[in-house]
Amino acid sequence: VSVIGCALLHHPVKDREGKTVTSAVTNLDVHDIARSARTFGLARYYVVSPVEVQHVLVQRIIEHWTTGAGRRRIPARHEALTLVGSALSLQAAVADFTERCGQVPKLIATAARPPEGRELTTFGAFRQRLEGGEREAYLILFGTGHGLADWVLQAADVLLEPITGQGYNHLSVRAAAAIVFDRLLGQR
Amino acid sequence: VSVIGCALLHHPVKDREGKTVTSAVTNLDVHDIARSARTFGLARYYVVSPVEVQHVLVQRIIEHWTTGAGRRRIPARHEALTLVGSALSLQAAVADFTERCGQVPKLIATAARPPEGRELTTFGAFRQRLEGGEREAYLILFGTGHGLADWVLQAADVLLEPITGQGYNHLSVRAAAAIVFDRLLGQR
Repeated sequence: VSVIGCALLHHPVKDREGKTVTSAVTNLDVHDIARSARTFGLARYYVVSPVEVQHVLVQRIIEHWTTGAGRRRIPARHEALTLVGSALSLQAAVADFTERCGQVPKLIATAARPPEGRELTTFGAFRQRLEGGEREAYLILFGTGHGLADWVLQAADVLLEPITGQGYNHLSVRAAAAIVFDRLLGQR
Repeated sequence: VSVIGCALLHHPVKDREGKTVTSAVTNLDVHDIARSARTFGLARYYVVSPVEVQHVLVQRIIEHWTTGAGRRRIPARHEALTLVGSALSLQAAVADFTERCGQVPKLIATAARPPEGRELTTFGAFRQRLEGGEREAYLILFGTGHGLADWVLQAADVLLEPITGQGYNHLSVRAAAAIVFDRLLGQR
């Protein structure tokens, strides 16, 4: 069975003009994606930001729910938040995940608007690969802002096809992550 | 083709002890579910709360993005937010939706932990019904807090099966709504 983690990148991501920027960490992104990751059996969820002071925020959220008052109020939240770790860079997240699972993870990128010329992998094909039985490690990458910087999309081992609905595709990253996990790992 | 709307109920919903309560409207629930609804072609999204002052909040969010400063900054958000309406009760939402689509909608409820004895409809079966070609109107109901009150689950025309992952099921309502829309309406 493969080991799957995910990472939410706050850098390098695009702004609405396509420039590379650093976005701010949002409380609800930590929670929602942790709960979705836990529901679909992911091993780890990295909140990636180069801004050190934002890690203090992430640590406070984690502690509130894993050992603090939140744990007493909503115990189930604790199981989700224990998956969360913060990392200063994608490289640091990859290094930590490699140490945890004893294998360098392949990087799986997601994009609402993929760059031209890059080969896309369908959800069905990647799901089959996950079900194939070989033990692999994968880190699924999500971008905040207007999505992952193009060089991340180009450098990833796999770029998943965009989620297609009815022409409009402006899902929140929280909604996109939930759908990606369900398409790859949800019970059918 | 069927017409599909959704409603996010802040009352009657359960608290963690199962008592019926009214929860507060959350800014991000308005946004995220509007964007998911728009992506999957829903016709309308009702934010349902009996607390009148919360409707002022919802109206402000809608106006900011449909006619205010937000429209200039992120035009795509406007297309999503135009789907949003607020309603004082489920009955009021049903009445408005009936008027808009000329047909009384069937009520489709969702629950992470359905009450015993209630028949559940699988996502696959309901998706087939949607693809069946008969023009029906449907309103998909989501509960905030710890989910829709049991009498709503019992009274609904259809109760969808819970989303199953790896045993743990504590998705945020934003994540659950995204997955429900994708399972029923996403391109395969």
